[in-house]
Amino acid sequence: MKLTCRVRFESGFRRHILLLTLLTTLIGSCLTAVSCLDALADTQAKPTSQGEVLPTWREGKAKQSILDFVHAVTTPGPEFVKEEERIAVFDNDGTLWCESPFYPQLQFAIDRAKVLVVDKPSLAEIPSVAAAVKGDSQALVATGSKGAIELIGVTHCGMSTQQFDRIASQWIAGAKQPRFNRPYTECVYQPMIELLAYLRQNNFKTYIVSGGGVELMRTFSEKVYGIAPEQVIGSSCKLQFEMVNGKPVIMRLPEIHFIDDKDGKPVGIHEYIGRRPIAAFGNSDGDLAMLQYTCLSEPKKPSLGLIVHHTDAAREYAYDRDSSIGRLDKALDEAKTHGWTVVDMKNDWKKVFAFDGKP
Amino acid sequence: MKLTCRVRFESGFRRHILLLTLLTTLIGSCLTAVSCLDALADTQAKPTSQGEVLPTWREGKAKQSILDFVHAVTTPGPEFVKEEERIAVFDNDGTLWCESPFYPQLQFAIDRAKVLVVDKPSLAEIPSVAAAVKGDSQALVATGSKGAIELIGVTHCGMSTQQFDRIASQWIAGAKQPRFNRPYTECVYQPMIELLAYLRQNNFKTYIVSGGGVELMRTFSEKVYGIAPEQVIGSSCKLQFEMVNGKPVIMRLPEIHFIDDKDGKPVGIHEYIGRRPIAAFGNSDGDLAMLQYTCLSEPKKPSLGLIVHHTDAAREYAYDRDSSIGRLDKALDEAKTHGWTVVDMKNDWKKVFAFDGKP
Repeated sequence: MKLTCRVRFESGFRRHILLLTLLTTLIGSCLTAVSCLDALADTQAKPTSQGEVLPTWREGKAKQSILDFVHAVTTPGPEFVKEEERIAVFDNDGTLWCESPFYPQLQFAIDRAKVLVVDKPSLAEIPSVAAAVKGDSQALVATGSKGAIELIGVTHCGMSTQQFDRIASQWIAGAKQPRFNRPYTECVYQPMIELLAYLRQNNFKTYIVSGGGVELMRTFSEKVYGIAPEQVIGSSCKLQFEMVNGKPVIMRLPEIHFIDDKDGKPVGIHEYIGRRPIAAFGNSDGDLAMLQYTCLSEPKKPSLGLIVHHTDAAREYAYDRDSSIGRLDKALDEAKTHGWTVVDMKNDWKKVFAFDGKP
Repeated sequence: MKLTCRVRFESGFRRHILLLTLLTTLIGSCLTAVSCLDALADTQAKPTSQGEVLPTWREGKAKQSILDFVHAVTTPGPEFVKEEERIAVFDNDGTLWCESPFYPQLQFAIDRAKVLVVDKPSLAEIPSVAAAVKGDSQALVATGSKGAIELIGVTHCGMSTQQFDRIASQWIAGAKQPRFNRPYTECVYQPMIELLAYLRQNNFKTYIVSGGGVELMRTFSEKVYGIAPEQVIGSSCKLQFEMVNGKPVIMRLPEIHFIDDKDGKPVGIHEYIGRRPIAAFGNSDGDLAMLQYTCLSEPKKPSLGLIVHHTDAAREYAYDRDSSIGRLDKALDEAKTHGWTVVDMKNDWKKVFAFDGKP
């Protein structure tokens, strides 16, 4: 996911500039041409069944690199890695689920703004909220960093974590990806679901390390990916504990606490996991630092770096170096230099989604 | 551990005041009278062997409350809790290991300052470093928040996470608790080691949630407590990812990122775990918010709140309401109100340390 980086290290002024960058990036992708396929059957992605290894991966270099790596680190010998050190980290947007034509989290903010304005019309006096409700991306960008903070504040904050969980869970249950007209939680990559399960079968601990908001991801990560809440690392706002009438409450404050993107990803990994992963999976320059940290820290030790390259306009989307979302440019060059696996979605995957080819 | 709270929510000014409070609290305890016992045999704490249940806990209300709770949540019935929701959180200082006569982390800062000054005498020009080296707590407190930040900066920061890990690991291997003249990692409470193991045998996931620095705790938590690095939540400084000559490095910056104490504990739990625990173990008012969050959020659901009350001056230390470290005052009152278990160390534990009663 392409977000800002280093917000945590920056002064207020620089943070504002970076938030503007974030919003510009997010909104810039809103108007990307979206073609709609007919609705396909309602088939939830399923993990690999026992006995099959990565069944929707075509035989080839990409699949083989995964099999070779897992064999090496699980077989007694010079590359063997103890179970507790088998940490694998996955980006979410564009790596596990579809991030085009724009990030689901942005759609959540827009949908949420629309709901809130019905109950409280005065919110439309906030220019960024009004722009979001109208779907006017230019007006939204024009509201600048103040507008971005206000929109995030109105739609994501000023409520308890329990309230947010309820709102986000309801949204994720009902919202649909616009091209495929299916819940976002069905627009997950079946080959990656199989890969997660395959790694866990080999006693890897699988983590999400995403620029997305941690609390939105936790509403579906266990059900959809088999990844427990405590193995989801993401961006977060500041929180505050309070006792309200004798009841404990954690409030979400309208301030950024941590942006888990770009250089923030290895920082988040160190802070939350405290061990370096041996395998990292991403799809954009936002994942480069995580790939570098995983694969270049101790080059003589085994590691797997893998990039999902979006090459399939027919079944999903095709984008890389010039995309305003999920830009894959520098990381694609580095993959070549360091021998990381680059997955060609069109040719390496028999299916993209579990519903592919279904009526 | 008694530290400052809410630093993450505060402006720079308030943060400085709180850091001063922190240092004052820490240093204030340095001169507490310390009596030294003869050295006892070098016996490392061991987890419970199979078949025995909490063998160093005397029969009584405290032990029974643990057994009853574990039985209730693991037995099919109205109080049964699914394995993935069996989260137990433990404070470290004063709950798992000895925090008297002053926090081991403070001793680390002092010892580190002494080492650094030998290599670089000019550091002694920093008043707080000079005071630490001399063991002059009054002079150290007089350096104020600036001094505190400088001391933490010099001793804990400005190095990579790998360098810190090496330094902290070396220190923890050699440093000794002054009264017992044993490594700090032997001055851990044998009954609590058994409790950790017992909960894990019942498919609980055990976490440390401590005001102590997360990276120092991670150097020994797995070996001493059986708690993996990714299950240690603690205070942290800001980190920054860098590529240095093609090698990934994470630098520790001289800025506080998160203080995991008091109101910070439920915040840390929500952020790192994303599920509410069903059991919380502490020893001071610094653990009150964590106990409230665990036990009062859904009072009809089963939970266990437990406070280790330091009542054993002969085998360890006796302190509570008036102590400058590990003050247990409000939480002791709330324990009564809410029916939390209060462990009387003197009477409820057959042994405090594994080495008790050894020659």
